[in-house]
Amino acid sequence: MPNTGASHSITIRLQMDHQPGLFAKVAEIIGRLGGNIGAIDIVKITKGKITRDVTVDTSGDDHKDEITEQLSQLQGLKVLHISDRVLLMHLGGKIEVNSRFPLNSRDELSMAYTPGVARVCEAIHKDPQLAHNLTIKKNTVAIVSDGTAVLGLGDIGPEAAMPVMEGKAMLFKEFGGVDAFPICLDTTDTEEIIRTVKAIAPGFGGVNLEDISAPRCFEIERRLQEELNIPIFHDDQHGTAIVMIAGLINALKVVNKEAKDIKAVVAGVGAAGTACTKMMLDLGITNIIGLDRTGTLYEGRDNMNSSKIAYADITNPQKIKGGMDEAIKDADLFVGLSGPDVLSLVQLKTMARDPIIFAMSNPTPEIMPEIALPHVAVMATGRSDYPNQLNNVLCFPGIFKGALKCRAKSITEEMKLAAAHAIAATVKDSERCADYIIPGVFNKDVARNVSRAVRKAHK
Amino acid sequence: MPNTGASHSITIRLQMDHQPGLFAKVAEIIGRLGGNIGAIDIVKITKGKITRDVTVDTSGDDHKDEITEQLSQLQGLKVLHISDRVLLMHLGGKIEVNSRFPLNSRDELSMAYTPGVARVCEAIHKDPQLAHNLTIKKNTVAIVSDGTAVLGLGDIGPEAAMPVMEGKAMLFKEFGGVDAFPICLDTTDTEEIIRTVKAIAPGFGGVNLEDISAPRCFEIERRLQEELNIPIFHDDQHGTAIVMIAGLINALKVVNKEAKDIKAVVAGVGAAGTACTKMMLDLGITNIIGLDRTGTLYEGRDNMNSSKIAYADITNPQKIKGGMDEAIKDADLFVGLSGPDVLSLVQLKTMARDPIIFAMSNPTPEIMPEIALPHVAVMATGRSDYPNQLNNVLCFPGIFKGALKCRAKSITEEMKLAAAHAIAATVKDSERCADYIIPGVFNKDVARNVSRAVRKAHK
Repeated sequence: MPNTGASHSITIRLQMDHQPGLFAKVAEIIGRLGGNIGAIDIVKITKGKITRDVTVDTSGDDHKDEITEQLSQLQGLKVLHISDRVLLMHLGGKIEVNSRFPLNSRDELSMAYTPGVARVCEAIHKDPQLAHNLTIKKNTVAIVSDGTAVLGLGDIGPEAAMPVMEGKAMLFKEFGGVDAFPICLDTTDTEEIIRTVKAIAPGFGGVNLEDISAPRCFEIERRLQEELNIPIFHDDQHGTAIVMIAGLINALKVVNKEAKDIKAVVAGVGAAGTACTKMMLDLGITNIIGLDRTGTLYEGRDNMNSSKIAYADITNPQKIKGGMDEAIKDADLFVGLSGPDVLSLVQLKTMARDPIIFAMSNPTPEIMPEIALPHVAVMATGRSDYPNQLNNVLCFPGIFKGALKCRAKSITEEMKLAAAHAIAATVKDSERCADYIIPGVFNKDVARNVSRAVRKAHK
Repeated sequence: MPNTGASHSITIRLQMDHQPGLFAKVAEIIGRLGGNIGAIDIVKITKGKITRDVTVDTSGDDHKDEITEQLSQLQGLKVLHISDRVLLMHLGGKIEVNSRFPLNSRDELSMAYTPGVARVCEAIHKDPQLAHNLTIKKNTVAIVSDGTAVLGLGDIGPEAAMPVMEGKAMLFKEFGGVDAFPICLDTTDTEEIIRTVKAIAPGFGGVNLEDISAPRCFEIERRLQEELNIPIFHDDQHGTAIVMIAGLINALKVVNKEAKDIKAVVAGVGAAGTACTKMMLDLGITNIIGLDRTGTLYEGRDNMNSSKIAYADITNPQKIKGGMDEAIKDADLFVGLSGPDVLSLVQLKTMARDPIIFAMSNPTPEIMPEIALPHVAVMATGRSDYPNQLNNVLCFPGIFKGALKCRAKSITEEMKLAAAHAIAATVKDSERCADYIIPGVFNKDVARNVSRAVRKAHK
């Protein structure tokens, strides 16, 4: 059966003769082809004809065409229209800008706008710090992307990146109560991005960098944090790392191991892999081996750029050479931020007892849970259709909520680690088990707990 | 009596003994000092004491201090706290970013965010024009300012300009249903502003430039309109001109004169004065004399920058030299965009029969209505406390609403003139009179009429 889902959901408008058993045939065809029928609405009834909207979760365009094709061949039925529910949902965009209170009278207008607003402007002009209280800077984050590394799609440009950034803005509000606005940049030049973000910074209380490709993302984040006094946070790096560490804290408890004692392998040492490794070191893991496509990273290896040289400097203390075979042997933890099929079952079986597998490549993990699960103690992925989904939404709303509340000038290592512990601790001791090392994305306690922990860690 | 208003409204928290007649004394003092009492709330009542919040419109800080001072001297009463209602209203800013629909289930999440959103990104990547349909670009405007010419306050910087831009965003939504987001820039360099706006343009359907000082505003608007294919609109110029022309269309009908026959004087040839003059020429007025602080502008005058030379080229056909005395004689229309007291009563009395005075300097007009009104046929100002308020809010929400709906790439002269006629026509023939040449700011028909006219004028 095809793997259907709401992300490929369509609404089929059918005009059908009033004929007993005809709708049963429709349902039979859709069911036989593996389509998942949802809502069925009657649009109108005329003499002898009935028009229905049938919502069907499909597995993709081919599946959709197949269903439509077969339905069209039914006697007494016409397919009037197919609409794509995901595209429909996006019409006009997903966010809006609203007034926080109405403007119904002259008095309200004269307080929120001229002439009253002039006094607010003067107050901020005298004391610029007041901008954090008297303007949206108090609670507003810019979601900045240049569209170069969007989801698994790569460099699709700023316009095409907007739907992701709008979705992110929804999540900021829904989970953190943070106002976030997408800024997609028509430039991929590092200096130009830095200049632009600095230029638009006065109205924002923080900047969430998103889907900017490596290695530019490192320089952009570092420089912006140096040159601005609001928090700059590259979610693809730090959000991923914080959530992964949160899962790891609980996974280690499940297998009853200590961070300092374990051996870990990180497949993929791009932006996210590097950030995960740094937080793993902070957590106390000392034996970490990173791998790129060439193999393990070690001091003195050929074919390494400056960030890989820096990586090798702080990892792989035994200077293990070779590929996954050599690295994975006796490892307690595998962290994948690379791509499909990077870890084989044979390799997995050489790991230490009770191995932990975090296969975070999306949509296809480094090893599929169906293959790995019988041989591991704990497994997590980035996907919602398996247990233990490591999803950044567990982090960014709460971490910005907290940083904005305490007016942090940056998000420090202490704040990140506090966020990871707060996410982990949202799973109660009594609940924690191999299938539940990380809270669900709809758990509203998470953002509140993260925010509180972040404020406490900020001094 | 002082000129009180909501823009200087305070809430005084008083702790009073339970003593008959004490509140009457409070009210007497406030009334005698000219304060205007609004809401009176009871906060709490304890044994023998009552705490009240009294809202008072004052005329400013001195007035506020005077009232507080005299109240403090009353026996049996303590002033606990004075809060400034305008500042209170601004706490946390005036706008927020919201989701257009909730994210309550995994299905919704998978449609609005990953994995479903990927298909929307891909669709836009294939056809970038779809960004106008499938993202907030459809209905979103950037309100861009560098904070150099804010209200009457001048160059107060980007942070201090935010409350004005947030207020403007409220008006965009309230009157035009347009989502607008303030972008206040930490640069005043022309090239840097142009570069920054171009860089952030992908997510916006239009740009409203605001409170950027002349002459940079001209170059910035011109270049952005050349280099971007979304409408760029400097409201201080064109919004002011459109509303002024709307009022003029009706004022000419009231005095029964034709545009082509009248003589007009424009005091102040900055950004707004120049834009007004251009639209007056478009309306058919041929005899326009502009004045700056030096006097009338005419071809060949000394002491003119390039924009004034261009201005003199298209105005003052009779090359009138001198000052206001020489210019205003026999004029039918005075348009003031300069400052207080630019036009004297003696000068006004030398105008043609049934003179029209648009004294738009804010907050103090070029001549006060109390002085001018007995001697004019029609008078308008920028103020809400006299009839005929020429307020930009009559234009910008509707003009952007229309431009976004028809996906205009720019706002043409035809669209501007159509907007002016639409505003003017919102006042019905049967209603039009000397005191009612322009609709009120809360008239919701205006934006709808402007939007419709703008779309019709766009081909």
